[in-house]
Amino acid sequence: MSKEIGTRAGDFSKWYNELVVKADLAEHSAVRGCMVIKPYGYAIWEKMQQALDKMFKDTGHQNAYFPLFIPKSFFSKEASHVDGFAKECAVVTHYRLKTAPDGSIVVDPDAKLEEELIVRPTSETIIWNTYRGWIQSYRDLPLLINQWANVVRWEMRTRLFLRTAEFLWQEGHTAHATKEEAIEETERMLNVYADFVENFMAVPVVKGVKTANERFAGALETYCIEAMLQDGKALQAGTSHFLGQNFAKAFDVKFSNKEGKLDYVWATSWGVSTRLMGALVMSHSDDNGLVLPPKLAPVQVVIVPIYKGDEGLAKITEAILPIKKSLEEKGISVKYDNRDTQRPGWKFAEYELKGVPVRVAIGERDLQNGTVEVARRDLLNKEVLPIAGIADKIEALLNDIQNNLFSLALKRREESNRTVNTMDEFKKALEKGGFTYAHWDGTAETEQKIKEETKATIRCIPLNNKKETGVCIYSGKPSEQRVLFAIAY
Amino acid sequence: MSKEIGTRAGDFSKWYNELVVKADLAEHSAVRGCMVIKPYGYAIWEKMQQALDKMFKDTGHQNAYFPLFIPKSFFSKEASHVDGFAKECAVVTHYRLKTAPDGSIVVDPDAKLEEELIVRPTSETIIWNTYRGWIQSYRDLPLLINQWANVVRWEMRTRLFLRTAEFLWQEGHTAHATKEEAIEETERMLNVYADFVENFMAVPVVKGVKTANERFAGALETYCIEAMLQDGKALQAGTSHFLGQNFAKAFDVKFSNKEGKLDYVWATSWGVSTRLMGALVMSHSDDNGLVLPPKLAPVQVVIVPIYKGDEGLAKITEAILPIKKSLEEKGISVKYDNRDTQRPGWKFAEYELKGVPVRVAIGERDLQNGTVEVARRDLLNKEVLPIAGIADKIEALLNDIQNNLFSLALKRREESNRTVNTMDEFKKALEKGGFTYAHWDGTAETEQKIKEETKATIRCIPLNNKKETGVCIYSGKPSEQRVLFAIAY
Repeated sequence: MSKEIGTRAGDFSKWYNELVVKADLAEHSAVRGCMVIKPYGYAIWEKMQQALDKMFKDTGHQNAYFPLFIPKSFFSKEASHVDGFAKECAVVTHYRLKTAPDGSIVVDPDAKLEEELIVRPTSETIIWNTYRGWIQSYRDLPLLINQWANVVRWEMRTRLFLRTAEFLWQEGHTAHATKEEAIEETERMLNVYADFVENFMAVPVVKGVKTANERFAGALETYCIEAMLQDGKALQAGTSHFLGQNFAKAFDVKFSNKEGKLDYVWATSWGVSTRLMGALVMSHSDDNGLVLPPKLAPVQVVIVPIYKGDEGLAKITEAILPIKKSLEEKGISVKYDNRDTQRPGWKFAEYELKGVPVRVAIGERDLQNGTVEVARRDLLNKEVLPIAGIADKIEALLNDIQNNLFSLALKRREESNRTVNTMDEFKKALEKGGFTYAHWDGTAETEQKIKEETKATIRCIPLNNKKETGVCIYSGKPSEQRVLFAIAY
Repeated sequence: MSKEIGTRAGDFSKWYNELVVKADLAEHSAVRGCMVIKPYGYAIWEKMQQALDKMFKDTGHQNAYFPLFIPKSFFSKEASHVDGFAKECAVVTHYRLKTAPDGSIVVDPDAKLEEELIVRPTSETIIWNTYRGWIQSYRDLPLLINQWANVVRWEMRTRLFLRTAEFLWQEGHTAHATKEEAIEETERMLNVYADFVENFMAVPVVKGVKTANERFAGALETYCIEAMLQDGKALQAGTSHFLGQNFAKAFDVKFSNKEGKLDYVWATSWGVSTRLMGALVMSHSDDNGLVLPPKLAPVQVVIVPIYKGDEGLAKITEAILPIKKSLEEKGISVKYDNRDTQRPGWKFAEYELKGVPVRVAIGERDLQNGTVEVARRDLLNKEVLPIAGIADKIEALLNDIQNNLFSLALKRREESNRTVNTMDEFKKALEKGGFTYAHWDGTAETEQKIKEETKATIRCIPLNNKKETGVCIYSGKPSEQRVLFAIAY
């Protein structure tokens, strides 16, 4: 199979699809809309999980596990929730197969479930039904729980990582005694997500709240972080929902407060998913392949020997092993690729495709000079460095790459920020791509009209927005702040 | 809710069910047969996962993720596989709900799937269908993959952890160029499982192979590890299957060998599940609650202050914090329970119920004497020790507890080992419980008859069996070795 991928400038979408498959991140499965996450892709996801899981635990959360299936009746209990998810549910109706008289395998009609089960698209309902048994008093609060799980939303048009029928995610579900504490938690987890996406993924984000139209089904307020990808489109990278008392009321979860009075519990939920893998790829990668930020790269440094014959390899290996060891002692993950089945040029291209942040090459001349050639993936440049002190140099280089990727992405976004005042300017800005800030009259109707006319949606009302009076670009009605518009994935 | 649990001697089964719920490990959910794994139970499972995941990676395996759903037609491709799983499948038939005219939520009949999807009970079929695209040449082999996932087998009579409709597990699926390599892998992973169960869970196991009757559906040979629980029943703790070329043939997975000739690939699969949680509880726990081996305890040491008033607490806390720190520096997980809402006696009972291996209590008199009271959960005894050097003492104590739990379990099993020569002896031995070794004529028919008459099954033919001629206890026909019988979970 050719390892050639398209170019970003040529067809960004095609480039992405090919890169995800050829860099061994994921592929489409035989099951419509479901992906296979391949070992290299899964190794990156594991690094994401580890970092996030630590952040969740550091903020007092514990993991638990709730059922994959949700009884159909649970959905109906929170009205806007069922509206939001009913159209994309995988429904289990039977619990047995049997062999038909003709020898084929068929669903056994005698094994029909009394009540259909929905494969969870999200777990608020089953979890709040469980919390009813866990929460009696203010002493049981706050309840801070996270779940790592697979969920299913039946998507018609799917795309590896970005939109798949089944995906992997984490969903936090917390319960609080007061509205204030719940809002504080919602904002805390938004900040955790922003911290992770910016400092591990090296992707800058805008924090904001969604408009009523774009809110999670069942939430009073949805906070989000929005990233801008290389093609100028926006991607919602994580959401944190203030659910008010909606689910507590739907599932009758009350607690007695310090004064002994009964009240409904306040809730939040928050999640990020394998969608982040798509954001990662689309943020940094180039026409040669993946570019991974060092903090999430399964292999941070690859060492490639340039040699002739077994004796040559033995000599170079002798020089390489101490370098490898000194890097590993710093907690850097190193791969020494001494396979003799592939030539160095092939290996260079392979690790470029896989986005390994630093490549070290050593040949016989290097050995004589006491040097190595160090190439960085982000800038695609290389330099010759002395072996003495090389581990410190590479450690600093990895930090530099991590920071540089963030700076580049931030610069790209800043350069594409546009502030517009008329529909004409708005449309021109959208053609160029990027984040566009414009006045909006605050109505769902106008939001919908703008979407129909331009495909752009309000990504969020930024949290750090400064108030500024103006007129809506669409309706001309008064507005008190600009909101962030973009074409989104 | 009362924290009282029954006794093992009174009703072992009731004791187990109550303990699992009251120690906050798991509970039944609103979905038939599915459990909720509570934070404390999940924390133990996470420790199991971490240890196993490291062992898998140390033996060269990588994680990946395959779809939750399997097209119905895939099952039919391997004949014995479909026979084994067809009767316990959750079947997805529709992909949408809708609102009926009366306002209720119903399955949308227009959203019927062309081909039904099965919620995976195990993933051989979808994985081997994927491997067809991944394997062309001997250079692609061995392919060593593991998946952490949820699976569903529709069980009619369920029991927390031991038998549930949905459970969590890992499933390894490997592909090899030769039969010998595949068998070697099957045995390697059996040994990894035995190592984990004995050295982390402190549960001794017998390694063996299953009879044809008890083989995994689609395997040529199923290796297993069998544990004996405190009630004398056996529990299959893990299985490793040599699948031959069955799945490669069913899914047409061929590779070209070094000579350029095409051949079918050889396969293994192996798995352990949240069932291990049940084995852990039933192996060591007592009438006071859980007893956890230190290597899997989320909290290894709890420190409880005995004090009067805020000033007293402040003084004791001052002495406790350095102890806590010195333990944490050794990688020991410590909880300092300074809550003033509960009395020490309540806390002691709580941590006994939760199985925390070591409890440290410090009162004012201890402070004056420079001592602490250290209690070990396994033996329920305590001693007064000087604060000086306490971290080393506790570290040694944790090791001692880990070893002691294994020794106790091994002793219990050895004492219940019985070798019998007649059906009468066999039945008497079964009444006492434990592992019974007897001659069997090697036929599935006799195995079935014995099961019908006594409920005992052949757990395995032990790997280290010595050959010994004799006569089958049931048929009187000649036999060349004794096999392991027991009543099993």
